[in-house]
Amino acid sequence: MRNNDGLFAVGSPVTHWSVQTSNPVQYEIRACENLLDPENSTILEDASGSSGQRRFIVTDGVVDSLYGDRVRAYFDHHGVEHRVLVLNDGETHKSMNAVLQVTEALDAFGIDRRREPVIAIGGGVLMDIVGFAASLYRRSTPFIRIPTTLIGLVDAGVGAKTGVNHNGHKNRLGTYFPADRTLLDRSFLATLDARHISNGLAEILKIALIKDARLFDLLEQHGADLLRNKLQSPADVGPTPADVPVDQRLAARGLHLDPATEVVERAIQGMLEELQPNLWEKVLERVVDYGHTFSPTIEMHALPALLHGEAVAVDMALTTVMAERRGLVSSYQRDRVLEVMARLGLPVWHPLCTPEVLGDALRDTVRHRDGKQRLPLPVGIGSALFVNDVTDGELAAAAESLAALGSGVSR
Amino acid sequence: MRNNDGLFAVGSPVTHWSVQTSNPVQYEIRACENLLDPENSTILEDASGSSGQRRFIVTDGVVDSLYGDRVRAYFDHHGVEHRVLVLNDGETHKSMNAVLQVTEALDAFGIDRRREPVIAIGGGVLMDIVGFAASLYRRSTPFIRIPTTLIGLVDAGVGAKTGVNHNGHKNRLGTYFPADRTLLDRSFLATLDARHISNGLAEILKIALIKDARLFDLLEQHGADLLRNKLQSPADVGPTPADVPVDQRLAARGLHLDPATEVVERAIQGMLEELQPNLWEKVLERVVDYGHTFSPTIEMHALPALLHGEAVAVDMALTTVMAERRGLVSSYQRDRVLEVMARLGLPVWHPLCTPEVLGDALRDTVRHRDGKQRLPLPVGIGSALFVNDVTDGELAAAAESLAALGSGVSR
Repeated sequence: MRNNDGLFAVGSPVTHWSVQTSNPVQYEIRACENLLDPENSTILEDASGSSGQRRFIVTDGVVDSLYGDRVRAYFDHHGVEHRVLVLNDGETHKSMNAVLQVTEALDAFGIDRRREPVIAIGGGVLMDIVGFAASLYRRSTPFIRIPTTLIGLVDAGVGAKTGVNHNGHKNRLGTYFPADRTLLDRSFLATLDARHISNGLAEILKIALIKDARLFDLLEQHGADLLRNKLQSPADVGPTPADVPVDQRLAARGLHLDPATEVVERAIQGMLEELQPNLWEKVLERVVDYGHTFSPTIEMHALPALLHGEAVAVDMALTTVMAERRGLVSSYQRDRVLEVMARLGLPVWHPLCTPEVLGDALRDTVRHRDGKQRLPLPVGIGSALFVNDVTDGELAAAAESLAALGSGVSR
Repeated sequence: MRNNDGLFAVGSPVTHWSVQTSNPVQYEIRACENLLDPENSTILEDASGSSGQRRFIVTDGVVDSLYGDRVRAYFDHHGVEHRVLVLNDGETHKSMNAVLQVTEALDAFGIDRRREPVIAIGGGVLMDIVGFAASLYRRSTPFIRIPTTLIGLVDAGVGAKTGVNHNGHKNRLGTYFPADRTLLDRSFLATLDARHISNGLAEILKIALIKDARLFDLLEQHGADLLRNKLQSPADVGPTPADVPVDQRLAARGLHLDPATEVVERAIQGMLEELQPNLWEKVLERVVDYGHTFSPTIEMHALPALLHGEAVAVDMALTTVMAERRGLVSSYQRDRVLEVMARLGLPVWHPLCTPEVLGDALRDTVRHRDGKQRLPLPVGIGSALFVNDVTDGELAAAAESLAALGSGVSR
């Protein structure tokens, strides 16, 4: 056996070689303010020198109409040659075609392989597409994420997954490829409509339900305000002058953080605690898969009627009902959960919750989880366990209960 | 700062999170005989149980016509439900379309995510396509490589790279995703034509030129025989009975290995020594990029006239001439190299070696190598260095010298 630090050749003649190595990955998520202010150099922080730098930026039509001028002015101000590629927005355009469109535009613009990161400015769909394209282009090109939606901020912008829908299946193709840096600027949320705030709140609620009872309490108490105020940090945290930092004003009132900041922070922290030890999903029992067992099929069938977070909410409502029927959640807790969903502007039922669709969804998820259901179910509020014994009968009964309950919860 | 084994959250409110982790990768390359013999269970070795196992196999039209019946009979014999997808063969079909064809057929067949590896049986092109599809399908599905060509055995089947040509560029899209297992059975080479043996010998010669003078000597001494005998282990290594293992028969004659075995073994060993510490190409000075600076552009322009290894040979001939002009290689060594290329059935010149094409090729490679040429040049035979100062003038002069020399070397 010849050994070369992870390369083992056995036998003479060699009967086999064994190659062992490890890919170290490091990435950063940073809370920022006024990212597009020309005086703010955060976006270009990794630029190795001012001259000769070039940047390729990808955004979608909606974001471009709102922020495109400021984006172009930002790079102009810094003297950085750039091109802004504008993709169609929305889940129906989350396709391999969009990925190839990015790579072909990259060919046309030309970037150096490592030191000119692609910049994605947009929501979860856009970041998944651009991340996928970056991971494939020359087998990996660095990229930076600037989420402009709440679901982008707390979910798609936090993890390592990229991907697109294909052949009628949600995220069927993709890679694990985190952005080197994700820059979170909550001021982008001010231009979101309420429905897209709700969409992101669904993923925050997921983290609350599986592991963070305090986060659930915050959503229960402040959910309606968060939705109305679009998670902007409050100007109303105290009578002290605006030039006193918000945290000092809060501290003067005995508060640690304003609810919007605390909710976003806990959601991201909770998500990262689950992702970091299992970034490549070698363990398939993942509590963050909660709400993602039936929703991929429901979302794809309903496309474009349901947003991702809405489909996740329907899945969570269904599985909360299943958990109550199994005695894992009390009926009081179940009702609190459904009530909070309604308060967050989320649906708790959908006509696609039929035994047939739910059965198909579960079978596809079982393949995705390597032959077992590994279905996360809530235990009370803030905890979860996995089950493998769900039957078609249980699904049908839960769907029927939910339909009855759902009609009583007003959104 | 809150620390959670690789997750660092800084500040209150949090100003940034840092995620640190590492993806351990282990893969195996095994020399085998009689892989398709129904009594040989190697291909199914990772099957967790005999019942309920299913396998999805991908091959190309040429391999299917030669071995398809034996492949189907193999899985039938083992009672394994299977589907064989047959792709078009050849570099012109190394496209994203082929990758999507694999993923759609996977959807139709349905496999469990981790325990039913996709099996690729074919040459380098096929393995690159299937590996790419497997890496994308559900963000990674394990696969097994069974190379049927020499270039597959010593090059495409050894590393971690997958990919396809796109937008007129060689391997522009791809991933790093090694097969869990690569099973090498040299008996497949018996059905290759001479040109495809030469194609693989080019990559073997590359390893010889940059790091293994002994391998060069073997090619110089036995190259013509290897080509003629298609690297089959010799029946003629001695008069002892065939049931005495070949290595014992060789040892009886004072030899360690027969030339075919030693050549293949040294080529794979040399390749793996370079790849294992740099599997994700974080270091862009790679000696195994030798012959791959100008060849991607030449190959794509000439498609389908030149095979990959032929384009690599032209690149190596050109850079050998450049090295001689710089005094890194003697004119005697240069002539030996060109002579060996001819002996291996490889071209040493191509009409596309014009200053224009070579200049374009170098510029694209510079982007691929992050803004520097990082051009490997041979130093004598069996060693290499990197240069960053090649000018258009030097390219033109080398191309002119090569054209003159090339016409004097008969293939």
